[in-house]
Amino acid sequence: MPASPAGSEIEKLIALLAKLPGLGPRSARRGALALVKKREQLLLPLADALADVGAKIKQCGTCGSIDVCDPCQICSAPTRDGAILCVVSEVGDLWAMERAAAFRGRYHVLGGCLSALDGIMPEDLNIAGLIERAAAADITEVILAMNATIDGQTTAHYITDHLRGCGVKISRLAHGVPVGGELDYLDDGTISAAVASRREF
Amino acid sequence: MPASPAGSEIEKLIALLAKLPGLGPRSARRGALALVKKREQLLLPLADALADVGAKIKQCGTCGSIDVCDPCQICSAPTRDGAILCVVSEVGDLWAMERAAAFRGRYHVLGGCLSALDGIMPEDLNIAGLIERAAAADITEVILAMNATIDGQTTAHYITDHLRGCGVKISRLAHGVPVGGELDYLDDGTISAAVASRREF
Repeated sequence: MPASPAGSEIEKLIALLAKLPGLGPRSARRGALALVKKREQLLLPLADALADVGAKIKQCGTCGSIDVCDPCQICSAPTRDGAILCVVSEVGDLWAMERAAAFRGRYHVLGGCLSALDGIMPEDLNIAGLIERAAAADITEVILAMNATIDGQTTAHYITDHLRGCGVKISRLAHGVPVGGELDYLDDGTISAAVASRREF
Repeated sequence: MPASPAGSEIEKLIALLAKLPGLGPRSARRGALALVKKREQLLLPLADALADVGAKIKQCGTCGSIDVCDPCQICSAPTRDGAILCVVSEVGDLWAMERAAAFRGRYHVLGGCLSALDGIMPEDLNIAGLIERAAAADITEVILAMNATIDGQTTAHYITDHLRGCGVKISRLAHGVPVGGELDYLDDGTISAAVASRREF
């Protein structure tokens, strides 16, 4: 049963849109119709933007992030502190850190998390590159900024074990009550962590 | 504050993705990252599919639907009953009717609904074209398949008033309990309509 009776071109567009995270078959259909309806303002600019990104965006050979240049803007910026490395799982996490503007060092993107369930092994991640960078003389601290999930924390433990010999300080993000968070809605683990890490007021 | 530190190309892609229905800034960022990650399998094919749709899809001059040909496949199919017209607001509604495969006549797409709030007036919709088609000798019935919303029903009433002189039978979709629906979750209006239109068992 085709999703639309408007020909294979639209079918193909809907099938591709449905592969985007968060879009199912129904929202892909809505999206395709919105694109056709706004041909000049949305469909053609989006086609151009995709071709542009496809042609220009590359992975940074140093940190594993994506940018139009290699090394990326963060790796090549002289204003960033080259002594601190922040390790993140995905480029999206790097972007989240940058939006918070709380870190002025450089990054290392692993490209995922260790996961026995999904069959993601240490050699699938950019861990060898991290150990090589951390062993360089100018790195003093590695901040592990993985998600606070089982897989994220497994990855953090694995990396900690392998960075022991590099002689760098290893830290992780603090656990605690999210800013704006309500105790009644928090899980026990977070409350326990927040109590254990309580600070003088 | 940019959504990403990866250059204006990605920014532009995110801004365009965020204009799709159902995608906000956050899901647009996730979508852009997924596209970059799956360059060969997703990004480049999507760019091609968009360019393809942009170049080939046009509006049918007869019914107002979209297709690669004008008149569209439904308007030109000899197997469809040319005596019955089904009036829908949007192309998506036509697709929904076709998926249900419950109608073998032809369609007329208005391109929206009358809406005082959004300032959509009769002249903004393809109503004149409908009256012209309905007045043709070979049309015997017009089915109004607008949404069961205030705007949809206002549009249906407006069209009914203007089709009176054409001498065609005018019908509308039945109201009632959706198949698989539970009474306890239905609104009073639907239950009242279902009782009023009850059928012998």
